[in-house]
Amino acid sequence: MLKVEGGVTAAEGFEAAAVHAEIKKGSKKDDMALVYSREEAVCAGVFTTNIVKAAPVIWDMQLVESKKGVHGMIFNSGIANACSGEEGRKSNHAMAESVAHAMGVETDQILTASTGVIGYQLPVEKVSRGAAELCAKLAHTREAAHEAAVAIMTTDTIPKECAVEFTLQGKTVRLGGMTKGSGMIHPNMATMLCCITTDCAITKEMLQKALSADVKKTFNMISVDRDTSTNDTYILMANGLAKNAVIDSEGEDFDIFCEALSEVSTCLAKLMAGDGEGAHKLLEVVLTGAKSREQAEIISKSVITSNLVKTAMAGNDANWGRILCAMGYSGAQFDPEQVDLVISSAAGELALVKNGIATGFSEELATKILSQKEVRVDIDIHMGTESATAWGCDLTHEYIDINADYRS
Amino acid sequence: MLKVEGGVTAAEGFEAAAVHAEIKKGSKKDDMALVYSREEAVCAGVFTTNIVKAAPVIWDMQLVESKKGVHGMIFNSGIANACSGEEGRKSNHAMAESVAHAMGVETDQILTASTGVIGYQLPVEKVSRGAAELCAKLAHTREAAHEAAVAIMTTDTIPKECAVEFTLQGKTVRLGGMTKGSGMIHPNMATMLCCITTDCAITKEMLQKALSADVKKTFNMISVDRDTSTNDTYILMANGLAKNAVIDSEGEDFDIFCEALSEVSTCLAKLMAGDGEGAHKLLEVVLTGAKSREQAEIISKSVITSNLVKTAMAGNDANWGRILCAMGYSGAQFDPEQVDLVISSAAGELALVKNGIATGFSEELATKILSQKEVRVDIDIHMGTESATAWGCDLTHEYIDINADYRS
Repeated sequence: MLKVEGGVTAAEGFEAAAVHAEIKKGSKKDDMALVYSREEAVCAGVFTTNIVKAAPVIWDMQLVESKKGVHGMIFNSGIANACSGEEGRKSNHAMAESVAHAMGVETDQILTASTGVIGYQLPVEKVSRGAAELCAKLAHTREAAHEAAVAIMTTDTIPKECAVEFTLQGKTVRLGGMTKGSGMIHPNMATMLCCITTDCAITKEMLQKALSADVKKTFNMISVDRDTSTNDTYILMANGLAKNAVIDSEGEDFDIFCEALSEVSTCLAKLMAGDGEGAHKLLEVVLTGAKSREQAEIISKSVITSNLVKTAMAGNDANWGRILCAMGYSGAQFDPEQVDLVISSAAGELALVKNGIATGFSEELATKILSQKEVRVDIDIHMGTESATAWGCDLTHEYIDINADYRS
Repeated sequence: MLKVEGGVTAAEGFEAAAVHAEIKKGSKKDDMALVYSREEAVCAGVFTTNIVKAAPVIWDMQLVESKKGVHGMIFNSGIANACSGEEGRKSNHAMAESVAHAMGVETDQILTASTGVIGYQLPVEKVSRGAAELCAKLAHTREAAHEAAVAIMTTDTIPKECAVEFTLQGKTVRLGGMTKGSGMIHPNMATMLCCITTDCAITKEMLQKALSADVKKTFNMISVDRDTSTNDTYILMANGLAKNAVIDSEGEDFDIFCEALSEVSTCLAKLMAGDGEGAHKLLEVVLTGAKSREQAEIISKSVITSNLVKTAMAGNDANWGRILCAMGYSGAQFDPEQVDLVISSAAGELALVKNGIATGFSEELATKILSQKEVRVDIDIHMGTESATAWGCDLTHEYIDINADYRS
């Protein structure tokens, strides 16, 4: 599995563009993006579980349900087009229609995605003008992909892209994507707009199967603040230009495809967790010795979502009692007096807890380990052989600053 | 129902005391307290649902289960005696034993409660010495009650006491209590140590019935940070000295007793929510128009626990979209386009949302309303006649400061 450049345009036939459409007042950064394939593509998707769903989410769910091929996905940042009623649904339709019109395809072949403030209406004229400009600017270049990744950012501090190249029976296949999101991130799932493209030839059914399995181990295992957004959207498009034998069932080719998808989505998920609003560090929690994958997921996610664990991390404080506490209220059963806990980072490794009680560790070394940009916590509950990994971040002053004043 | 002074010693026959036992290094405040009744009392209790339970929680659960009468409850702050293994259980027993020895009662007639850092061992000698001093200092005065309420504080900024007087068929009855807790507070339930005493004559069964019903509408409806502690303990003791006809079944007397309990526990719960770590304001969310009490509870609790709602409150930002978002991921079903939402405070009242979309309200007035110390949000989902009220607070820089550095 070879890492390559190019993000969402790494795969053959996918083009991208970004423009500044003035959607958020005062901001000068690009705020609209388009990802497009002139070759028809099959698509799969996973969406927010929030019952308050933004207009683009409702739209995309219909397109993913339908058997019709798609051509692209248009994005805007600044306004979420959520809690916007009938007017919001109309402006979402207009956004897709503008692209369809310019490119000569049908409106229900264009997916949409919005992110930003809830409760405001999209400025339809600006959006339509922006869509036309995007269509004129489309390019199959890594610069275009990068600009698109920047345009969909809100409070993100870095654009998030990743792509890989692999081989299926002699044919070179590429898969790459971009994501945004650093607030409202929570298992089931992050906000988070994610778009991954591939030139792999694969049926719609197998594409959805790969995506649905993948999301459980990647985007659903990260959390920044437990708030599950109205707009979470994860779309995967495949246009078949790699000319490999179509993947239409499970088997070796499907496994390789899933591995490539996991490589890219894990990379993007970790970038999101580490770029959580105000985050200074990425926290990786590896739970081993579980009786089931489910038990391991529940416990590891409970740890990364605890505000008290996250603030202790912000203070580089080895307050392991809060980790045990968060495990204890997770809802999963285990014996607290069988828990071992080890922290590690570039600065070293240290056992904090053995059989549920403190080892008498060096506080100085613990602080040194926790002061790094990436910190790992290994927890063994000694009940079985299953495991899970969850990713989160620390909770800092900057999180408060960003969110106390997000609308202004 | 008359509010009276005296907190945990308002009821006849209850005495209290506080001492400084040097449990937390560097702190000069009192850190041990005792509440005692020379007359044997019946007790009821509710405890943390966390499977990691502190030594005093395990101890108290046994005492509440047993039919034996109790005499008192000893508290320490500074160390939680949680994740402390066999040594912790022994030091907890020693704490109860010291009181029992000095007062000439049995060890399993003394409840215990600890709050503070997890994972450290109690200094047994200091605790035993403190317990002896407490027994010598016991007094039935409002000063003693107040000192006890101060001694159990950790990061609390104010002591929390409340008491009422009422009449049962001509007899004057009193019920009062104290609580601590401002971190780790979350439905099911807060940390939170709470001790309420009454001179009412009531059977153990009816006392537990009253307590179990009460906690659902009071302490389980507040949240500061979703972290359910290892030490949550809510004890109610009744010594019968009011000489009323013993309450041994449901009826008018029981209803009056429950009303008095609700008055005191609601008062204490709101004091806790408003004194949440770093909180600048109390947030009250009243959900009406629900099909069931359960639906109303789920939605209102989801709103008060959302970090994004809480940070918006810290910034006095009328970001109602986050409230709808938190309602939407609560797990309860409702129609987002049927939601009305009104904010109010001492500065006025303002409708923000009608039928799920913005009313076009004045941002200036909204900010003025949200800038008060107590803010209320009324949400109507227009599905039925049930309702629930939940209490929380804003999420501020100070929360991070307190928790990034709690152990040092």
